[in-house]
Amino acid sequence: MTDLDPVPVPVSVGRPPSSAEEAASWAEEVPPVPLDVVAVGSPLVDVLAHAADADLAAVELVKGSMALVDLDRAASIYGGMAPATEVSGGSAANTAAGVAALGGRAGFVGLFADDEMGEVFRHDITAAGVILGRTTPAPSAEGLGTGRCLVLVTPDGERTMATYLGAASTLGPDQLDVDLVGRGQIVYLEGYLWDLGPAKAALRVAVEVAHGSDALVALTVSDPFCVERHRKEFLELLQEDVDVLFANEEEIISLFGSSSFDAALGALEETGLLAAVTRGAAGSVVLTAAGTVEIPAQPVDKVVDTTGAGDLYAAGFLYGLTNGLGPEESGRLGGLCAAEVISHLGARPQVDLRELAREAGIL
Amino acid sequence: MTDLDPVPVPVSVGRPPSSAEEAASWAEEVPPVPLDVVAVGSPLVDVLAHAADADLAAVELVKGSMALVDLDRAASIYGGMAPATEVSGGSAANTAAGVAALGGRAGFVGLFADDEMGEVFRHDITAAGVILGRTTPAPSAEGLGTGRCLVLVTPDGERTMATYLGAASTLGPDQLDVDLVGRGQIVYLEGYLWDLGPAKAALRVAVEVAHGSDALVALTVSDPFCVERHRKEFLELLQEDVDVLFANEEEIISLFGSSSFDAALGALEETGLLAAVTRGAAGSVVLTAAGTVEIPAQPVDKVVDTTGAGDLYAAGFLYGLTNGLGPEESGRLGGLCAAEVISHLGARPQVDLRELAREAGIL
Repeated sequence: MTDLDPVPVPVSVGRPPSSAEEAASWAEEVPPVPLDVVAVGSPLVDVLAHAADADLAAVELVKGSMALVDLDRAASIYGGMAPATEVSGGSAANTAAGVAALGGRAGFVGLFADDEMGEVFRHDITAAGVILGRTTPAPSAEGLGTGRCLVLVTPDGERTMATYLGAASTLGPDQLDVDLVGRGQIVYLEGYLWDLGPAKAALRVAVEVAHGSDALVALTVSDPFCVERHRKEFLELLQEDVDVLFANEEEIISLFGSSSFDAALGALEETGLLAAVTRGAAGSVVLTAAGTVEIPAQPVDKVVDTTGAGDLYAAGFLYGLTNGLGPEESGRLGGLCAAEVISHLGARPQVDLRELAREAGIL
Repeated sequence: MTDLDPVPVPVSVGRPPSSAEEAASWAEEVPPVPLDVVAVGSPLVDVLAHAADADLAAVELVKGSMALVDLDRAASIYGGMAPATEVSGGSAANTAAGVAALGGRAGFVGLFADDEMGEVFRHDITAAGVILGRTTPAPSAEGLGTGRCLVLVTPDGERTMATYLGAASTLGPDQLDVDLVGRGQIVYLEGYLWDLGPAKAALRVAVEVAHGSDALVALTVSDPFCVERHRKEFLELLQEDVDVLFANEEEIISLFGSSSFDAALGALEETGLLAAVTRGAAGSVVLTAAGTVEIPAQPVDKVVDTTGAGDLYAAGFLYGLTNGLGPEESGRLGGLCAAEVISHLGARPQVDLRELAREAGIL
């Protein structure tokens, strides 16, 4: 706490916590320091292994998608996987880690179990400088382990995921850490949470808390299949509750039932939302009240693993928005962060993103 | 089992198991298929994170060494580590995985607990095609978890390790899977095991089993500090029990109390052992009855993490010896395998080593 102001510092000049201890002390401060971004989602440990396209077919997974699986199916898929690497993941948690890696103040709310993988998740997110909310699962979580995401990475760098949510699936309104949510300038919600009954009510509370404190609500629709499952609810959310939308090309086409990307962009423009649409190697498109800007992708030598690309794009974009960058610069920063994370295995940054952004002249 | 001979095939033309299921079925065959290498050591899950030199000093670890730590100290070091990656490790287990990755038949004997990290270790070693021996720990292992090795990787790629052995520390003669040990053409022992009282008696049994079945005994002295702790015992072993020795430059200088590398090589020559001495970027030296051969190092673009370099050198060398290569070619294969493993984080191969060796014209 030596060089930390005793009163909340303006977030735009906030520096990142320099250690897990400092992050924890910030979390306990009175009055609490506001945070750039508080992300709500499912904490997962990613189990990554290389796989051939034929391996996906053998376990009936659709390439590029995320399937929710029960414990038995997870064990069966894992049994057939190559030697793996375990790294903390979870879509919204990756975004929070990215915001912190850029020097932002980030919080994360989500549930995991008191087991070895939970210990791994807790260590990694706090070591990244993210303030972790209350993690007590619902009583119904008894016997459920920390969630895992089996990630099969094919030679083209594409990832196909099978997620066992475990304790994360018990997030309900009573488990939501509203104090931490209330500290976010932006509250970021993971679309995957709409797959969970109790979580929907928790997200409703998070939206109310955010708007009650004049914070913005950001949503990622997460996955084309997730959009298919929840199209109606997502469209309703866009009308009333969401201020910033993240989606990729395929997802907005599906969301608006459009026949082309241009038609989908047109439909998205009509919502009047601030939106960032990622297009893989084609970069991204940022939509603002002032118009639409195309942002070229950051070149990458070799795409090793696309896991986390969208999550880290969102991290850069949200950090930019809460730290004085305009939407276009924020989009460029998002692209830079996404490029870093797809150049290695795992969905959390492996270099100093702040330094990277400085070298690129963005920060 | 579709394309597997019903009788043991000559090991020199043995193909690797094509799946974990096949590896398991081989393990149960009657009569058992002989194996190229059976490795005995401590199964560990490596917890790898980047660190600065100052971080090592802060936790009182000596750069480049391996320190045994208790659970409290492990928790304290882990608490200060950056976000980490979990990958299966353990010196002898890495060697077994390397032999399998080259297409050899490998077994591994060592103890871990019935917990989440144990599940990770079991999955990864069997998915690598290694036949796992009986893993029932001694009753005294009650409450001990699967062993972990905290690996702090500094910017120069050097690794500094703190190992909590947990269940691995209870390996005694009663726990040793002598049936699996008896199937090895070469039984490979990890010097680190001499740190454990009960393990010494188990290794004595392993040596007897090996020599009783005309197998060779190979030893790695593991670590310069390990040599200091067990110099006398290692020198006695070389006289009677060991046929193949692995060490690095610093280790043989310490082992023979020599004033220079050349003097140490001279002392090693006098033992008459087959020996491979690794020298990092300077390559390796292979000593045989016919003389001494220097083998240049395989070029590496960037040394990311030296964890496993010695283990994978041993894998290549042992695969070569048991599959018709001469000592010099075996040393070249060892160098190739070591170069692969230091070019990424983690101590297990990430590419098809057999393919790599073919491209290099060794296999």
